[in-house]
Amino acid sequence: MSLQSPRSFRKSHELFERAAKVVPGGIYGHTSPAVMIPGAFPYYGQRASGSRYWDVDGNEYIDYMCGYGPMVLGHGHPVVEEAALRQQRDALCLNHPGAAMVELAETLVETVDFADWAVLGKNGSDMTTWAIQVAREFTHRKKILKAAGAYHGIDPWCTPGHAGLIEEDRAHIHDFNWNDLESFEARLKEFPGQIAAVILTPFHHPTFKPSVMPAEGFMKGIEAACQREGIVFILDDIRAGFRLHHGGSHRYFGFEPDLICFCKAIANGHPLSAALGRKELRIAASKVFLTGSYWQSPPPMAASLACLKVLREENAVETIRRVGTALMTGLVAAGAKHGYEMISSGPPALPLLTFANDASLRRQQRFCIEATARGAFLHPHHNWFVSAAHTDADVAETLRIADEAFAVLRESEGAKPAA
Amino acid sequence: MSLQSPRSFRKSHELFERAAKVVPGGIYGHTSPAVMIPGAFPYYGQRASGSRYWDVDGNEYIDYMCGYGPMVLGHGHPVVEEAALRQQRDALCLNHPGAAMVELAETLVETVDFADWAVLGKNGSDMTTWAIQVAREFTHRKKILKAAGAYHGIDPWCTPGHAGLIEEDRAHIHDFNWNDLESFEARLKEFPGQIAAVILTPFHHPTFKPSVMPAEGFMKGIEAACQREGIVFILDDIRAGFRLHHGGSHRYFGFEPDLICFCKAIANGHPLSAALGRKELRIAASKVFLTGSYWQSPPPMAASLACLKVLREENAVETIRRVGTALMTGLVAAGAKHGYEMISSGPPALPLLTFANDASLRRQQRFCIEATARGAFLHPHHNWFVSAAHTDADVAETLRIADEAFAVLRESEGAKPAA
Repeated sequence: MSLQSPRSFRKSHELFERAAKVVPGGIYGHTSPAVMIPGAFPYYGQRASGSRYWDVDGNEYIDYMCGYGPMVLGHGHPVVEEAALRQQRDALCLNHPGAAMVELAETLVETVDFADWAVLGKNGSDMTTWAIQVAREFTHRKKILKAAGAYHGIDPWCTPGHAGLIEEDRAHIHDFNWNDLESFEARLKEFPGQIAAVILTPFHHPTFKPSVMPAEGFMKGIEAACQREGIVFILDDIRAGFRLHHGGSHRYFGFEPDLICFCKAIANGHPLSAALGRKELRIAASKVFLTGSYWQSPPPMAASLACLKVLREENAVETIRRVGTALMTGLVAAGAKHGYEMISSGPPALPLLTFANDASLRRQQRFCIEATARGAFLHPHHNWFVSAAHTDADVAETLRIADEAFAVLRESEGAKPAA
Repeated sequence: MSLQSPRSFRKSHELFERAAKVVPGGIYGHTSPAVMIPGAFPYYGQRASGSRYWDVDGNEYIDYMCGYGPMVLGHGHPVVEEAALRQQRDALCLNHPGAAMVELAETLVETVDFADWAVLGKNGSDMTTWAIQVAREFTHRKKILKAAGAYHGIDPWCTPGHAGLIEEDRAHIHDFNWNDLESFEARLKEFPGQIAAVILTPFHHPTFKPSVMPAEGFMKGIEAACQREGIVFILDDIRAGFRLHHGGSHRYFGFEPDLICFCKAIANGHPLSAALGRKELRIAASKVFLTGSYWQSPPPMAASLACLKVLREENAVETIRRVGTALMTGLVAAGAKHGYEMISSGPPALPLLTFANDASLRRQQRFCIEATARGAFLHPHHNWFVSAAHTDADVAETLRIADEAFAVLRESEGAKPAA
């Protein structure tokens, strides 16, 4: 079973060959499927609009990654872009915050039910690393609990990489198992009175594996234990935030954290992140130093104000849920038609399609390569992202493409489904 | 001696009162003089153009902070903004890098003499934290040496804050004294074969104190010791980069590091940072995981290509040096006219003016408040930034303003210079 694409990525390859001379690894980060399976996916992108983008060879794709999340309203949303550009013409980067910062902090605090305050950054890692410092300052404790295999950014305490780390980076970072309250309670018993924070994503989305939703009672169990033990419950909503619920993903799943981190969808692609917290954490939050280059740049804040308004007014979350559900229901049915048992995991807004009985991921990879070659960009190893710009017509086209991709797979494997 | 401004900041105050309700501390980071000395400086900015900006009350300033560095060509430089906007209309945030990333990596590697490769990020801290991981991966050693009081970002290993830290964050971070090779060599003897990297800024710019240039032989001494001991020499050029020399600040001072971090002036205010290194570090660099939200966004990369081109073609570094020298020579003379001994420290491109005999900083603060009230924004506690948009007319206006500010100070102190 070949893992080459039937489509040409000539210009992508030429650029990658140039990049390989001056960039370690050519392309880094974000588990680029082009780098992991050479010849199978485009390396470089050119332009984008709504639910579509074009690679540097001019190939068009329905975009089911949305820049790994940010494009929640689709590429180049006119209201968001106009707000950002208007601000950008006035000022890109000043010695002081702009009025947009105050308006955005007010809007965010109104948007998130338990929040008393907000701070802003540029990346996801900025906020998760700052959040654990706030928890340590508040509790005067050292230890942080997280779910094994969860992604919380690239700083040494949490990076999924292994290189350049020293043992002290994670001396007080401890794992427990997702959806396993017993393994969580075991950590509480192991470190009585020593745990500053628990940090969790709203659902579990390990790379290379199906996503796992929180089991009934899991999040409420964590919440109750944190209240009982004086532990800060941090929701890392960087990936899912504003795609599941306008007020933060805890509302979608029915629980309440103490501190929440946003990024990705907060400004429809403009660089911004945020952390919001309970009143009790405000003094600790004011003490942990927070700044950076371009930190007070108003255009992403103006973009965020516009993005949050459109999300709310157009009930984008409901559009995304509806379209994502139609997409995944259709894909599972298309697989079944060709004799494949497909698994749709995660919420419809950030879904992932995988094959049952495919430990090597070869079927998964082949299917995504064939779908991508036909114009539906499907990532084989990472959850997908649906936007409010995706239409019923996009879904219909994707299902037609998937039918062809499953047929190619079936033909290459012979008539009977392999075990 | 009052520390109130004679100018009105009514709208600034109103916004700050609103912010104080929803933002811990109201405004955080970057040692905002408005927060440190209430009533003395504007809190919020509105718009900017060239060497000027306006606060939310409509007050105009000659901008000697340039957004804490980024605006090296002045606010809203037409060539940079056009390049960024053209790219932004095509694509803000894609699943893949754009061609601009390859061009920028090539340009950066051509620009920096010792560099074989480049990677990109968004903030300064992204790059300094990644750089020490690369050094640890390359050397398989743990310890990092830095100058006491130096600023390298906000991550726990280096933040100037004290809150939320645990002892393990700095278990292997050790200080030595700036310009003191003996204290450096003492650390080498204390930790033989254990030091992964030395990280230094090209000159020393502690907040609240005069800047200190590298003494003759200091940087070359560090360089030689690093070569001898197999230590990675990291130049943190985030603040000074592209203001002192087009090819990196090591060229200005005559030495050669192994790895260099840029940010600030790299894209005239568009959010981007970079790290470049020697060939020997390439494999280690490819292993240390590096990514983040909006990481592959092409507009800041297009802005950077334009910015670096303009800097080079217009010899902006020379303009900045000339204007900065005229400014500081004139300010020292203006102080002397009113009986004040002034100290100009740091390079003319990133200068700081302080008073001799002013341990409490009250004169410094009063002078900067009076100058700012008259339209020259001078920060009392942090080095300033000169841009290529600053003109001889700006300097002349600033010197006229300074003359008035010194006169006010002199009048409030009585006729004789205080000791």
